Amino acid sequence: MLTLASDFGTPYPAAMKGVLCRRTDARLVDVAHDFPRQDVRAAAFWLREVLPYFPPAVHLVVVDPGVGTDRKAIIVRAGEHALVGPDNGVLRPAARRLAGDDTPEYYVVDEERLESPEPAGRRSRVGREAATPSATALRSNADSRNDGSETGPASTTFHGRDVFAPAAGEVHEVGVEDLPDLEWLESLEGDSVDCRLPDATFEDGDGDGGTRATGEVLVVDDFGNVITNVPGGFLADRERILANGEAVPVGETFAAVPAGDRLATVGSHGYVELDVNQGRGDEAFGLEAGDRVKMRRV
Amino acid sequence: MLTLASDFGTPYPAAMKGVLCRRTDARLVDVAHDFPRQDVRAAAFWLREVLPYFPPAVHLVVVDPGVGTDRKAIIVRAGEHALVGPDNGVLRPAARRLAGDDTPEYYVVDEERLESPEPAGRRSRVGREAATPSATALRSNADSRNDGSETGPASTTFHGRDVFAPAAGEVHEVGVEDLPDLEWLESLEGDSVDCRLPDATFEDGDGDGGTRATGEVLVVDDFGNVITNVPGGFLADRERILANGEAVPVGETFAAVPAGDRLATVGSHGYVELDVNQGRGDEAFGLEAGDRVKMRRV
Amino acid sequence: MLTLASDFGTPYPAAMKGVLCRRTDARLVDVAHDFPRQDVRAAAFWLREVLPYFPPAVHLVVVDPGVGTDRKAIIVRAGEHALVGPDNGVLRPAARRLAGDDTPEYYVVDEERLESPEPAGRRSRVGREAATPSATALRSNADSRNDGSETGPASTTFHGRDVFAPAAGEVHEVGVEDLPDLEWLESLEGDSVDCRLPDATFEDGDGDGGTRATGEVLVVDDFGNVITNVPGGFLADRERILANGEAVPVGETFAAVPAGDRLATVGSHGYVELDVNQGRGDEAFGLEAGDRVKMRRV
Repeated sequence: MLTLASDFGTPYPAAMKGVLCRRTDARLVDVAHDFPRQDVRAAAFWLREVLPYFPPAVHLVVVDPGVGTDRKAIIVRAGEHALVGPDNGVLRPAARRLAGDDTPEYYVVDEERLESPEPAGRRSRVGREAATPSATALRSNADSRNDGSETGPASTTFHGRDVFAPAAGEVHEVGVEDLPDLEWLESLEGDSVDCRLPDATFEDGDGDGGTRATGEVLVVDDFGNVITNVPGGFLADRERILANGEAVPVGETFAAVPAGDRLATVGSHGYVELDVNQGRGDEAFGLEAGDRVKMRRV
Repeated sequence: MLTLASDFGTPYPAAMKGVLCRRTDARLVDVAHDFPRQDVRAAAFWLREVLPYFPPAVHLVVVDPGVGTDRKAIIVRAGEHALVGPDNGVLRPAARRLAGDDTPEYYVVDEERLESPEPAGRRSRVGREAATPSATALRSNADSRNDGSETGPASTTFHGRDVFAPAAGEVHEVGVEDLPDLEWLESLEGDSVDCRLPDATFEDGDGDGGTRATGEVLVVDDFGNVITNVPGGFLADRERILANGEAVPVGETFAAVPAGDRLATVGSHGYVELDVNQGRGDEAFGLEAGDRVKMRRV
Repeated sequence: MLTLASDFGTPYPAAMKGVLCRRTDARLVDVAHDFPRQDVRAAAFWLREVLPYFPPAVHLVVVDPGVGTDRKAIIVRAGEHALVGPDNGVLRPAARRLAGDDTPEYYVVDEERLESPEPAGRRSRVGREAATPSATALRSNADSRNDGSETGPASTTFHGRDVFAPAAGEVHEVGVEDLPDLEWLESLEGDSVDCRLPDATFEDGDGDGGTRATGEVLVVDDFGNVITNVPGGFLADRERILANGEAVPVGETFAAVPAGDRLATVGSHGYVELDVNQGRGDEAFGLEAGDRVKMRRV
């Protein structure tokens, strides 16, 4: 199966699906197409948390602020999974998680040797060599065709459709095990970009048995839940904690506090979340992604 | 096949899909994941109206303001369909509709006996017994692992992924007919929660042949159409009605009135809707879900 | 396979999918369900650009401001593809593109002969003959049934569910090649509605080697990119152009300019786009769909 994730909104993901459907009958499942625009770290977090619930699959990921630059297109083999996307770090936290005790293997797509998708109905192929038609040619072109089917060179702005989707489809068909055999793949050498989600740090308390954590807001989810990087065990055996100096009750579930009240809980990802029962934690705590959070067990 | 409905936005539904895809090759179809947040009644209405158009299927529904409380997780057998979700009433109007002349059968999930999903890449299983690690263990844990894969106990806040999706997948695989054989299911006994969408009431007019209806706005759809609970037949043979005292033309279709004008029509669910042709009825009529609407045939 | 596109939001597309799933096991892929509301031209553009990337398929399209009027329901055979939707022009630019060197064939759905979907659980069929129940019948109806399953006549406002989806499902099952054999199809005769996306016009410059183009903004995408109808070749060999009198650098990719800066580039559809690197071009240029854009090569 194949999953798709991007920050594209609509309808761009559909073009990727069309390209995929030409290459494979695999089941397609959307992870999300509304990741925060060009936010590599948020996407990296969500992918790390969500992809491990899937069976072995090829995961197509396009959050790509560097599209059209010389950033590489890469493929990662991680356990029985493969990830396809830009070399900006977005794949790596998920790849490390999916690889378990193994080490992910990284490959680079040789875009020159990967066949680009050919949309239906282009009457004559417009190749890269046609990238600089003369003004006269342009005009006669525009005059003779109503529907603009020969409007220019291949895109440098939609690698999701033209590079990553074809690559993901081919990886799926050859299989994760045999992907190193793909002739348009090379081992990743030289510079490469990582994205490491920060860890919380801890220090023992001042003799009162307390412990302090300094963490960070990794993301805020659609519900407004503030997801930090402090491991959930920090809340163990506590009825309340201090979060940025304010006392907050600890609950096993939102319903531990009245509707509208704040709480600290262990979220579904295993981290401490600062939430509001039936409300928005981000607004109640005044926190957003990237903010620092100090917690203290009391 | 399996349908999914929730108020989760993204990307949480993808985690449910991953869990499902590990258990079944069934076709997955999204009903909606943007139901009004924690609004049981709105979801109950939409499910009742949409699910009957599907072929026999298992319907996974998570609109669950009581997640983590002692509200039960239930499964309903309704005709050739099954519904899986929280026992807060959200499943019941749809279940009654799908059951047709039969009575729906209700079962409770024994969550202790249902196997939770196991995400890829957790190097050592963190069970419930690990829910209270010491601060020291926590720190060494955080030091040794970058990607937070052992961050805490199982979630009490995401039953969609950890309870309902596994249950729905297993129901699909065993089949609706045989679901009572599932060893982690018991008949529902004792207290249970219903959600009954209100009926409109009627009284005859005052000798002028008119008839009055007192209804309620069930939901407002994405177009702004105000969907009431007054049956569409109320508009029969009428050119206009009074709605909360104001005369409104009756049309078989939006186009019966000029763009921007108000009308009453029989919506796609069979109820009287108060709409605006190419505009928003909720704004024009000043109505929202739950508001009372008095109508009079004139 | 089948694709779906509409301006319905949610959950109405799910009802169409239910209807389709009763008729076919085909793969269903969403193109978009958030097309600008009732904007035939925008949908026509996106379909023309996206559908050619799909393998042969049946494409269900419902952007239908005239639902319930006497506008026809049509089916177009275009190459190995078929398109199903309202006769308001929305299908035609895509159909011409998909047909390539062939001419699309147009058919009309005879709605009287097409079987409407039958939802589960309606205990007695409410046909069109029941469209005018007496007030007494209505009341007893409302009294005796809680869940409103006999609330009125068939819908005149949701042809996506009741006409287009059944038609698309049957076209898929009979196959694009044999669709003319469908007994509820007739050749399209008489008046029909087209939608022609405008072409840019060009004139030579005033002796300085420049060339001028007068184009139009076709759509603004979710990123805020301003997609014009000026073919991308217009930018060939230029380092900058004048757009509505202002100098704008030409880049092969967004990253050719600093974050936040404006540029003109060849977008993924092959047209000149006016964009902002990691920002919104529509706001920076003050342009929206339908606005005129004058460009000059300098």
